[in-house]
Amino acid sequence: MEVTRRNYKDSLSTVYSAIEEADFLAIDGEFSGISDGPNVSALTNGLDTPEERYTKLKKHSMDFLLFQFGLCTFKYDQTKSKYITKPFNFYIFPKPFNRTSPDIKFICQSSSIDFLASQGFDFNKVFCNGIPYLNQEEEAQLREQTEERRNQHANGVGTPSYISPSSSKGPAHVPEEHKDFINRVVEKVEALFSNSEKTLDLDPCTGFQRKLIYQTLNWKFPKGLHVETMETEKKERYIQVSKVDEEERKRREQQKLEREQEELNDAVGFSRVIHAISKSGKLVVGHNMLLDVMHTIHQFYCPLPEDLQDFKEVTMCVFPRLLDTKLMASTQPFKELINNTSLAELEKQLKETPFKSPQVETAEGFPSYDTAQEQLHEAGYDAYITGLCFISMANYLGSFLTPPKAYISARSKLIEPFFNKLFLMRIIDIPYLNITGPDLQPKRDHVLYVTFPKEWKTSDLYQLFSAFGNIQVSWIDDTSAFVSLSQTDQVQIAMNTSRYAESYKIQTYAEYIQAKDKDKPGQTAKTWGEDGWVKSHYTSSTTSGFGYPRLRKRSISPVQGEQGTEEALIADGWSHYSYPDSTGSKKMRTDDPSRQANAEAVQSKTSEGWLKTTDASNSAELSPAPDDDKSSGSTDPGSDAEGTITWQQTSTVQGRKGQKNKKKKSEAAESTTSLFEVPEVW
Amino acid sequence: MEVTRRNYKDSLSTVYSAIEEADFLAIDGEFSGISDGPNVSALTNGLDTPEERYTKLKKHSMDFLLFQFGLCTFKYDQTKSKYITKPFNFYIFPKPFNRTSPDIKFICQSSSIDFLASQGFDFNKVFCNGIPYLNQEEEAQLREQTEERRNQHANGVGTPSYISPSSSKGPAHVPEEHKDFINRVVEKVEALFSNSEKTLDLDPCTGFQRKLIYQTLNWKFPKGLHVETMETEKKERYIQVSKVDEEERKRREQQKLEREQEELNDAVGFSRVIHAISKSGKLVVGHNMLLDVMHTIHQFYCPLPEDLQDFKEVTMCVFPRLLDTKLMASTQPFKELINNTSLAELEKQLKETPFKSPQVETAEGFPSYDTAQEQLHEAGYDAYITGLCFISMANYLGSFLTPPKAYISARSKLIEPFFNKLFLMRIIDIPYLNITGPDLQPKRDHVLYVTFPKEWKTSDLYQLFSAFGNIQVSWIDDTSAFVSLSQTDQVQIAMNTSRYAESYKIQTYAEYIQAKDKDKPGQTAKTWGEDGWVKSHYTSSTTSGFGYPRLRKRSISPVQGEQGTEEALIADGWSHYSYPDSTGSKKMRTDDPSRQANAEAVQSKTSEGWLKTTDASNSAELSPAPDDDKSSGSTDPGSDAEGTITWQQTSTVQGRKGQKNKKKKSEAAESTTSLFEVPEVW
Repeated sequence: MEVTRRNYKDSLSTVYSAIEEADFLAIDGEFSGISDGPNVSALTNGLDTPEERYTKLKKHSMDFLLFQFGLCTFKYDQTKSKYITKPFNFYIFPKPFNRTSPDIKFICQSSSIDFLASQGFDFNKVFCNGIPYLNQEEEAQLREQTEERRNQHANGVGTPSYISPSSSKGPAHVPEEHKDFINRVVEKVEALFSNSEKTLDLDPCTGFQRKLIYQTLNWKFPKGLHVETMETEKKERYIQVSKVDEEERKRREQQKLEREQEELNDAVGFSRVIHAISKSGKLVVGHNMLLDVMHTIHQFYCPLPEDLQDFKEVTMCVFPRLLDTKLMASTQPFKELINNTSLAELEKQLKETPFKSPQVETAEGFPSYDTAQEQLHEAGYDAYITGLCFISMANYLGSFLTPPKAYISARSKLIEPFFNKLFLMRIIDIPYLNITGPDLQPKRDHVLYVTFPKEWKTSDLYQLFSAFGNIQVSWIDDTSAFVSLSQTDQVQIAMNTSRYAESYKIQTYAEYIQAKDKDKPGQTAKTWGEDGWVKSHYTSSTTSGFGYPRLRKRSISPVQGEQGTEEALIADGWSHYSYPDSTGSKKMRTDDPSRQANAEAVQSKTSEGWLKTTDASNSAELSPAPDDDKSSGSTDPGSDAEGTITWQQTSTVQGRKGQKNKKKKSEAAESTTSLFEVPEVW
Repeated sequence: MEVTRRNYKDSLSTVYSAIEEADFLAIDGEFSGISDGPNVSALTNGLDTPEERYTKLKKHSMDFLLFQFGLCTFKYDQTKSKYITKPFNFYIFPKPFNRTSPDIKFICQSSSIDFLASQGFDFNKVFCNGIPYLNQEEEAQLREQTEERRNQHANGVGTPSYISPSSSKGPAHVPEEHKDFINRVVEKVEALFSNSEKTLDLDPCTGFQRKLIYQTLNWKFPKGLHVETMETEKKERYIQVSKVDEEERKRREQQKLEREQEELNDAVGFSRVIHAISKSGKLVVGHNMLLDVMHTIHQFYCPLPEDLQDFKEVTMCVFPRLLDTKLMASTQPFKELINNTSLAELEKQLKETPFKSPQVETAEGFPSYDTAQEQLHEAGYDAYITGLCFISMANYLGSFLTPPKAYISARSKLIEPFFNKLFLMRIIDIPYLNITGPDLQPKRDHVLYVTFPKEWKTSDLYQLFSAFGNIQVSWIDDTSAFVSLSQTDQVQIAMNTSRYAESYKIQTYAEYIQAKDKDKPGQTAKTWGEDGWVKSHYTSSTTSGFGYPRLRKRSISPVQGEQGTEEALIADGWSHYSYPDSTGSKKMRTDDPSRQANAEAVQSKTSEGWLKTTDASNSAELSPAPDDDKSSGSTDPGSDAEGTITWQQTSTVQGRKGQKNKKKKSEAAESTTSLFEVPEVW
C-alpha cells in the first residue's frame, strides 16, 4: 500500500493494526545519498573498529534524507499454514509545518539520486506528497507551545496567533507609526459593539500589525469578543472580530485548540508509525540494516549520540529486537550455502534447494508484489523480500531439529543467536556490530599503520613491503593506510627496517590504537564487564575459518586497494554507488524486527532499564565466553587488543530454557561443522 | 521549449542560433534552496557591506543546486515592429559521467523544495532527465585524460580503458594469484592467431583483471590485435580481442577516440549553453539576479573566488553586460511609479499607464507563454517575463526623448546607466553591487555595533536605547546587532553612557569596520583608483532621497527586527521562503544580458584585459565622480568610510559619444527630478 501525505491519516489505523497483529516486521529505507565526504571505500575501511565505523557513518551519512520507508508486516496464519503480509511503502518529506517550524536542509548525492531515478523512483511523490515528521525534541517543543496557548486561554488571555516574549498582559506598546492604524481598528470594534453586525473583517495587514491588534483588543475588550486570524483566497491574512457571549467564546477557543491539537499530530506525521513499531516491541528484520537503523533513529527520534555505546543503548530502546538478514546469510549454517548475500541474489538463492520458498499471501486490499518481476529499490518491496528471506532461513534451521520442523516462528529460540547483530560492511575481521553486548576485538598484530607522502600509490606500499610476500592494503586517507602482513613475526622486522625512514612512518596497530585512544580520553573507559558480561575474545585463527572468503581473497591482492576495490564491491551491495549502471545490487536497507518483550523499553532510556531487557532474554545465550577448549592465549577478561586474546565460538546454551523437541545439546559448542539443532553464530 | 537530457543534443543548434541572432537575452535560475546556515533575515542584514553580503551568499548559498535554467532570447523584428522571442527551459542535473567523474553532493532546503512543489515543479524531470554539466576545471581534466589516451595511441601503446601510473610500457607486474588467469588468456589469444576466427570474447572479469589483460596483450602482441572492453546485457564487462591488420586497427582506434570526444562533449553538457551566452557578449537581463549569476559561475565555470573584487572580475569575463530589472525598477524614473518590484507584480504594473505592454511574438515552433495564466517559477517563463519587463522599462525611457521614441533598443545609450549593477536585497543604503566599479560607501556614522548576551531580544535593545527615540535594529547574530540612531549626534552620548556597562558593549560602525579589516589584512588594500576610476563618495543625506521607502519604514519599527521582518520580505521576493504558501513572489532569479562588444573578454581573464572592456565602452558614463555642485565634504579619492565622503548622483555624460536625437545634455546631472533624456541612476 502506497502511503503519502494525501492518504496518510486515513491509513494510520490500518498501519497500527497491521503492526499490532504481526508476528514480525520487515523494514527498509531509501536515502538521498550515502557519503557526503570520503568515497565509499574510504568510508568502509576493512580494518575499521566498530567505533570508527559508527563515527564515520554518523559524520558522513546522516545529512542525507531517508525519504522512502518500507514496512511489511508478517502474520502467521495457522489454518492456512502461511504468512499473511501487509506491505506499506511510505513517502517521507520534512515539509515545514508552519513558519516557525524547522526548515530542514538535507544533502543529495548525485550518484544515489541517479541510481534511484534509473530504478523508476518517483521524486515528485516524495517532494510533493511526502509525509512530514518531527523528532522527539521538535514534537516536545511544539506540544509545549500548544500547552502554553492552552494555559493562556484558561487564564483568559486569549489566543494570539502570535506569541512573543514581549507580548505582556499590559497595554501593548504601539510604535508611533502604527498608532493611527491601531486607533482606527479600536474605533471600528467599538462601532461593532453598538451596531447589529455580528462580525467585523479588518483589512489584511502585516503580522506585526496583527500582533498589535491582538494585544490591544485583548487589553481593551477582555470580554465579549472572539478575535481570529483568517486568510483570504489570495492567502492574505486578516483579522476577524466577532461579538460573542462568554460561552460562545469559550466554545470557539476550545474548537481552535482541538484544531491545533490535530495539526500537531499531523506534524508529528510519519514519526507515529516508527513509534508504533517501537512500542510493539516486535522483531524487526532488515537487510544490511545498520544505516537504516541509524537514519530512523536520527530522523524520527533524536540526533545520534557521539559514543557508540550510547548509540547501542538508544537503539535497544527504539528497537528491542533486530535481525539483519545479510548477517544471518553470512553466518553458519548459511554462509556455506549462499555465495552472494546482496538482497536480490539472496532472495533468488533462498528459492532453491536446500531452502524452500516461503508460503505467503498478501492480505486482502493490499497490492501484491510479484517477486518474478523485481521491483527492487522500492522500499516496500525490499522490506517484503527481506521478510521472505528471513522466513526461508528461519525455516531452514527447523530442518536440523529432530524431528525436523517446516515452520519456525519468529519467537523461536533458534533465531535468537542472530538477534541484535547488525552486519558491518566490508570489515575483514568483525562481521557485525553487537547491539546488546561488547564487540568482537580481533587480534590485529599482523597489521601495520603506515603514514607517507600523499603522492604515494598502492604500488609504492607494495614495493616498500616487497620483502614480506603478500600484503593487504586498506587505505585510510591520502597519507595513511593499514598494511596487513601475512606473517605476524614479520612485524618486528618491518618495524626495525623502518626505524630510520624519513618519507614514511610505521606503527604497529596496537600503537595506532593507543595513540587514538589518547586523543579521546574516556572513550575506552566504558566496559560491559559489570553486568555479567564477559569481555570479548577472539583469536585471529578463528577468523580464518570464519567467512567472507571472496572479499578476503580480493583484498589480499596488491594494487587492488587502489583500483580493484570498486569491482569487489559489486556483490556487497554498494555497487550501484561506484557503478551506477550495475543491476541486481542493493543500496543499503533497513528492516528491523522487534519483539513483544519490551514495550516499555522505549520509555526507560537509562542504562539500567535497557540492560535489564538484555539480561532477561538473551544475555546467557549470546555472551561470548572464554574458550577453555582451544585457548590460544590469555583468557584474561581485562586483556586488550594488544594482548593475545581469543573469542569463543558462541555457544547458544538453549538447554537452559528447556525447549521442546530437543534431544541433543552438548554438541552445539563443539565445532562449526557439528552444528545440529542450534546454529553457531561464528 | 523544454530541454532535457533526451532532446539536448538535438536542440543545441537551435539554442546557439537563437543566442546568435538575439538583441538581448533574459535568464533565470531555480535552485534547491537559498541558505544552509542563517535564516534569510540574518543572511541579508540591512547593513551588510557588499563584501559581507557576497561572503555570506558564497558561504551559505552555493551548495544548493541550480537545477532549472531559463533562457529567453529576444530579437527585434523591424518590419513587424515587435520582438520575436525564443524561450528555453533547461532541466539540469549533475549525473555522474563515468565511474571516475565527480559525484556531486548538493543541499536541498525543504521550504524551497516545498515551495517549488506547490508550483508544480517537476522533480522527476530534473533528477531523471536533467542535462549534465562540467565546470571548466573538470572539463580540462577530462580533455587531458582523452588527450593522454590519444598520445598513447599515437605512440602505439594502445588505448587501455584503464590508465594508472603503474601501467608502464614494460611487461605488466602480474600478482601471483592472477598469473594462471593471465596465462590462460595469453594461450587463448595465441590460439586466435592460428585459427580462422576473427574475434575472441573473453569471460567477464574484474577491472583489475582487465587492466592486467590490456597490459599483457599490449606487451606481448604489439601488432595485429584490437582489444576492447565490451558489456554484456547484464552489464558485466568483458574483453573482446580482434585480429586486425594495422590499418583496420588504426581505423578502430580512431573511431573509439571520436566516440570518446563525443562523450566528452556530452559530459560538458549544459555548460556549453552558458559558454555560448558568455561568448556572444550580448546583454543578459535578469531579475534580482545576483544569486543567479553567482550560481551560474560557480556551477559552470569555477568555484567562486574568496574576494568580492575577484568575483567582479570573473563576472565581467563571463557576462560582460548584465542588467537587473529589479534594480532598474527600483531606480529613477521607475521607483516613483512602481511600488512592488517582485517579478510578478512588476510585470503587471508595466502593462499599465504610463507603461506599455511590449509587442512580442513567440517564434514559430516555440510554445508561447500566456502572461494572463501565470506560470511563475518555471525558469523559462520567468526569464520570458523578465525580458518583457526590461522592454517596457527601456521603451518608457524613450518617452523622455525629443521627439519621443516608442522603441528603445538593447544597444541604446539610454539603458547603459543600468548596466552591471546587481540588486542587493534588503540593504538599506546600498542598492546595488557595482560589478564594473567600486561600490557605494554610505556614511554610517549614526550606526552602532552592539554586542550582548544571547538571551537579549529586540525589546531589550529597544529599552537600552529608549532615551534616543526611534532606533532601527539589524540583527547580525544571536549576540550582536547594528542599532541605527535617528540622530548622528546621539552617537557620542550613547558611547559615553555605555562606557561602564558590563553585560553589553557598544562600538561605532567605524570602529567595527576597522576591527573587521584588521582581521583580514589586504582585503581593503585593493582599490580601483589606478585605472582612471574615482573612488566612490556618498553622503548619507543623499540616501534619504533615494528610495525603498516601504522597506525603510518597516525596518525602522521596533520589535520588527524580531518578528515583523518576515512579513516585510513578501514583496521582496524572498517571501516563499518564510511563507511557503504566499503567491506572486519570486525566489531569486538570474537573467544576464550581454553585448556584442567583448566576445574576447571571456578569454582574457587578467585584470587588464577586463578593465579594457569597461574602459572602452562605459567607464566614462558610469564612473562616479566628485560632486562639485553640492559637495558636502571631502572629495579626496583616498578618504575612507570614516571620513566625510560624498557620492555624486551618477551623471551619464552621453554627449561625449554624440548620440542622435539628443538636444539637451547639461541638465542630466542637476537633480533627481530634472531627469530628462537620461535617467540618473541614484
